[in-house]
Amino acid sequence: MLGNFTFCNPTKLYFGTDAMKGLDEELPKYGKNVLLVYGGGSIKKSGLYDQVIKILKANGKEIFEDAGVMPNPTVKKLYEGVERARKAKADLILAVGGGSVCDYAKAVSVSVFCDEDPWEKYYLRFEEPSCKIVPVGCVLTMVGTGSEMNGGSVITNHEQKLKIGHVFGEEVFPKFSVLNPEITYTLPKYQMVAGFYDIMSHILEQYFSGEDDNTSDYLMEGLMRSLIHSSLIALKNPKDYEARSNIMWTATWALNTLVAKGKTTDWEVHMLGQAVGAVTDATHGMTLAAVSMPYYRHILPYGLSNFKRFAVNVWNVDPTGKTDEAVAEEGLRAMEKWMKELGLVMNITDLGAKEDMLDDLVNATLIMDGGYKVLNKEEIRDIFKASF
Amino acid sequence: MLGNFTFCNPTKLYFGTDAMKGLDEELPKYGKNVLLVYGGGSIKKSGLYDQVIKILKANGKEIFEDAGVMPNPTVKKLYEGVERARKAKADLILAVGGGSVCDYAKAVSVSVFCDEDPWEKYYLRFEEPSCKIVPVGCVLTMVGTGSEMNGGSVITNHEQKLKIGHVFGEEVFPKFSVLNPEITYTLPKYQMVAGFYDIMSHILEQYFSGEDDNTSDYLMEGLMRSLIHSSLIALKNPKDYEARSNIMWTATWALNTLVAKGKTTDWEVHMLGQAVGAVTDATHGMTLAAVSMPYYRHILPYGLSNFKRFAVNVWNVDPTGKTDEAVAEEGLRAMEKWMKELGLVMNITDLGAKEDMLDDLVNATLIMDGGYKVLNKEEIRDIFKASF
Repeated sequence: MLGNFTFCNPTKLYFGTDAMKGLDEELPKYGKNVLLVYGGGSIKKSGLYDQVIKILKANGKEIFEDAGVMPNPTVKKLYEGVERARKAKADLILAVGGGSVCDYAKAVSVSVFCDEDPWEKYYLRFEEPSCKIVPVGCVLTMVGTGSEMNGGSVITNHEQKLKIGHVFGEEVFPKFSVLNPEITYTLPKYQMVAGFYDIMSHILEQYFSGEDDNTSDYLMEGLMRSLIHSSLIALKNPKDYEARSNIMWTATWALNTLVAKGKTTDWEVHMLGQAVGAVTDATHGMTLAAVSMPYYRHILPYGLSNFKRFAVNVWNVDPTGKTDEAVAEEGLRAMEKWMKELGLVMNITDLGAKEDMLDDLVNATLIMDGGYKVLNKEEIRDIFKASF
Repeated sequence: MLGNFTFCNPTKLYFGTDAMKGLDEELPKYGKNVLLVYGGGSIKKSGLYDQVIKILKANGKEIFEDAGVMPNPTVKKLYEGVERARKAKADLILAVGGGSVCDYAKAVSVSVFCDEDPWEKYYLRFEEPSCKIVPVGCVLTMVGTGSEMNGGSVITNHEQKLKIGHVFGEEVFPKFSVLNPEITYTLPKYQMVAGFYDIMSHILEQYFSGEDDNTSDYLMEGLMRSLIHSSLIALKNPKDYEARSNIMWTATWALNTLVAKGKTTDWEVHMLGQAVGAVTDATHGMTLAAVSMPYYRHILPYGLSNFKRFAVNVWNVDPTGKTDEAVAEEGLRAMEKWMKELGLVMNITDLGAKEDMLDDLVNATLIMDGGYKVLNKEEIRDIFKASF
């Protein structure tokens, strides 16, 4: 049953080959000082950096830079970014990059005018912003996190061995996002397929929760079918515009709050994966892939009817003459086959995890209560053991 | 392939059994003068009117009323509403009703400060507003049109025998909408099922266009499957909250711009149905139902592959060993069976149309160019003939 909820997603999206024109429409709405946030410099190689600088200058902006945002943005980098934004008196934070850069930009945006320690306030105590928020805009270079149209922001604290996500309200959503599928062509295959699985995982975290049969479930089945279809085309030809554009659009709708409305959600795979990320610094989507099959096989008996539905409606498993368990397992096997075909990392050993990290992994894993089974520490340990 | 587009839907939705609380959150954002717009008085019988008045008064509002909005709001009524809104110096137009009331409120909102004749400017010349727009809020009592989260506004001119819809931009979308599925329980069955088919028709108009295989198509298949499933439950038990809430949510997403993004759309069924509405004043959803099967059977050969896809993915038709034509026709027959089961009016005779109205019907039908076949006048005549 659809529970009570509110829905509002005010982010304006510019989508397609001419999406960059959106910057010319949006930039005049903000003050002069723009903090340009980006990652390791791939946007300089691709020419995107020059393109953005040119548009900013043409719009009369004063540009301040905050480069070097890492794939798992750290709390140390966050403190540095906040200082830069304060010095720049930033009127707009423009994130040019993937989900990490966008997540980081949001973290900075709620911290510039915050008197408290943002790590403690937002990521340890999960409090909401009570200060002025600097508006964020986004030019997306990598698909997967959905960060371009939501309030999600994940920050890593290596000292504390924690990687924690805060899902902020609509006032922290990017004001606008520029989504040009062609920009994602140059992404290395490893990052591309990791992003594909990140999308799949977002949907599964919301799909495998509750006993509902609501519109969201049907929408999610549609998103998954589209993703599976397009991912295999993109794998063969990363420059297939149709596939890449549909995947980009799917990613946005997988995590822009729509499909979670009125239903419970799980997110335990993200907690397990983020623990792996905290101790290994591995690529986010791969950490999710590496723990997914052991987790889903563990919870399958508790959510059997939905695993069966998943097999039939998403993977076209024919249920005739089979037990529910057999149908459900056939669905998981179909997903596993697809994951291997994409070239995803299917175990945490290949991501750099070692047996002696087991305690750290277990300790870094937050326990959620929206899944089919609330895990205990022993079960988390077992799932990690099965993931090596 | 996903074409280039922008997406922005800023409407805030309050959904569920406690959705009316949203009024308390929204009303303080607007000035004192509220123009309360509603229809024939069913909201007085149901108690909703008293409830809304109480909330408006508790929020210190000055209430001005504009009652009697008819199912097909007329241009005459529009002129009257504009005068009322001007006299009231309305800071907010609050529409309490179904799609007609909401459509009408939007028409008033763009006309209050407009120096020109709104019928001519917006509905004959399809121009965009160049004046101040009075904000609109909505309390929805009937499901189907999607008007609660889009810029659509259909107005009827009986003298000119025209019923025309203008799809306004996001600045005309309701600022907020209150969606409580329980409010829809009291709706007579005729209106309820007409609304169900209105939803289906909105999806089909967007689905049956272009040769694309994009995320939108998968989303629409999900929406249709959910609608078919829930509609049959609601038919047996109109107070089944799960069914009614999912249908309400499906209706919103069927026509809030999402599924049309990046693709072509048709809308010829609406043009045919609106012509029927213009000459008979019949219920909107029923006019769509009455012309749908003749239209779809006429265009099937031109969009065969998508009609086949529709049969397999929406109606679970098994394509094994059948020709594409047979599969496609089996899908249409399945839809026809569902329509009859709902009790929809399947011909225009039962809606009051007579053979001598044929010329008027053909003349009132706008010809769209997004479908699988751009109709000529003779084909329109044939489709109407097959609809008697």
